[in-house]
Amino acid sequence: MGNLKNWLMIIEYDGARYCGWQTQPNGPSIEAELVGALKVMLREPVKITGAGRTDAGVHARGQAANFRTEVDLEPDRLRWQLNAVLPKDIVVRRIHGVPDDFDARRSASSRTYSYAFLNRPYPSAFLSRHSWWVSRPLAIDEMQAGAAALIGSHDFSGFTVAKEGPMTRNVKSIEITEADSGGLVVIRITANAFLHHMVRLIVGTLIEVGVGKLPASAVGEILVAADVRRAGPRAPAKGLTLERVEYEGFRAHLEP
Amino acid sequence: MGNLKNWLMIIEYDGARYCGWQTQPNGPSIEAELVGALKVMLREPVKITGAGRTDAGVHARGQAANFRTEVDLEPDRLRWQLNAVLPKDIVVRRIHGVPDDFDARRSASSRTYSYAFLNRPYPSAFLSRHSWWVSRPLAIDEMQAGAAALIGSHDFSGFTVAKEGPMTRNVKSIEITEADSGGLVVIRITANAFLHHMVRLIVGTLIEVGVGKLPASAVGEILVAADVRRAGPRAPAKGLTLERVEYEGFRAHLEP
Repeated sequence: MGNLKNWLMIIEYDGARYCGWQTQPNGPSIEAELVGALKVMLREPVKITGAGRTDAGVHARGQAANFRTEVDLEPDRLRWQLNAVLPKDIVVRRIHGVPDDFDARRSASSRTYSYAFLNRPYPSAFLSRHSWWVSRPLAIDEMQAGAAALIGSHDFSGFTVAKEGPMTRNVKSIEITEADSGGLVVIRITANAFLHHMVRLIVGTLIEVGVGKLPASAVGEILVAADVRRAGPRAPAKGLTLERVEYEGFRAHLEP
Repeated sequence: MGNLKNWLMIIEYDGARYCGWQTQPNGPSIEAELVGALKVMLREPVKITGAGRTDAGVHARGQAANFRTEVDLEPDRLRWQLNAVLPKDIVVRRIHGVPDDFDARRSASSRTYSYAFLNRPYPSAFLSRHSWWVSRPLAIDEMQAGAAALIGSHDFSGFTVAKEGPMTRNVKSIEITEADSGGLVVIRITANAFLHHMVRLIVGTLIEVGVGKLPASAVGEILVAADVRRAGPRAPAKGLTLERVEYEGFRAHLEP
């Protein structure tokens, strides 16, 4: 057996055209595109492990995935080659050598997602593929008050479509920021891990609070009741972006 | 004759799918889409006058255009209706009543364009339709030194494909800004008016300065020589955006 080395890639993608991260029979996936490009460049099949299984239409600026190969590769050269072969909506930002036991999914200590929405009386010609247009004015302070109830370790059954498995997640922060003067608002949420559709259900609920359909106190009540039927609608995938994945001890060189 | 009123629209568009602002036989145009949508809503044909005839693939955040109609319209309601009918890549931001003699093109006192490029060793999955990827490191300070020679009223024959007509334009400012930590650089240029391909030829020349192919002093020399064959290549349309049009006395309510 040769010298099998472990490599981590940081990947950016526009998810609009894809059925999600994971390889699926019913359409193109980010994983399958990357596996295909790696096979062309390394001249051998590789298996990759992604940190977050993003859904159809969800984007990433800092997805992380690792693969192992005996090929003696030069990271910056491989990055250049992969970006020349990949479709324009998938870009490899960095390639790093990592220890043998590093696993992009299991070694991750936290994930950060952002959700972008446009809050103004007219849509955007540029952001329609990457944000949710909410024309009614939002009470950002009410949304912030509601979001505060989610911080910490909780059973998040009230904000997922998952029906089984452990439901406890540790939400480390939720920030709601008016990103510019043009009505772009970004909700940024960091947790150790997320349940299926958790961010989109939290965002949909916070929007209900922002437009006054729900009081801020409803967010904490849904959490305690653990009843997803009381949560707001699932916000559309196109506003959601996996911003970064964190690994203890790797913080500095994983900045996207 | 009824009461013919004059209306100004501020328009945002992603130019990628269009053959330009102006109605043409060979493909869809922004003007034709707007004329079509106005005809549906006002139930009468209208003629519109745009401030800047943007080329194929060029975008706008603050294009200005006026039209006259006898229809008694409510601006915010018409904006809502137009945005419901227009393709997603064209958005009406504002509609204002303006004086009878207002003409979006002839009344304009200045135009501001931005040119976006991405300066990093790998492309972007999100910005590939709206910026030019320049992978080699750029000396921004050299570009700024070169750009300074263009400020003021000059014959811009050295930076246009136009062969006839008055060649003097007054460039009021050129700012080159690193817009974020991710390698996005924006050149913002304001002039009373622009010659055909003037911004893209200036940007292409400044990039040659930035990568060291031309010294900063070459920019002023090309201007004086008035010889476009010495200018850099025309930067691709996709990085160019008409940001705003200014009218004396209308400044405040024309903010996009």
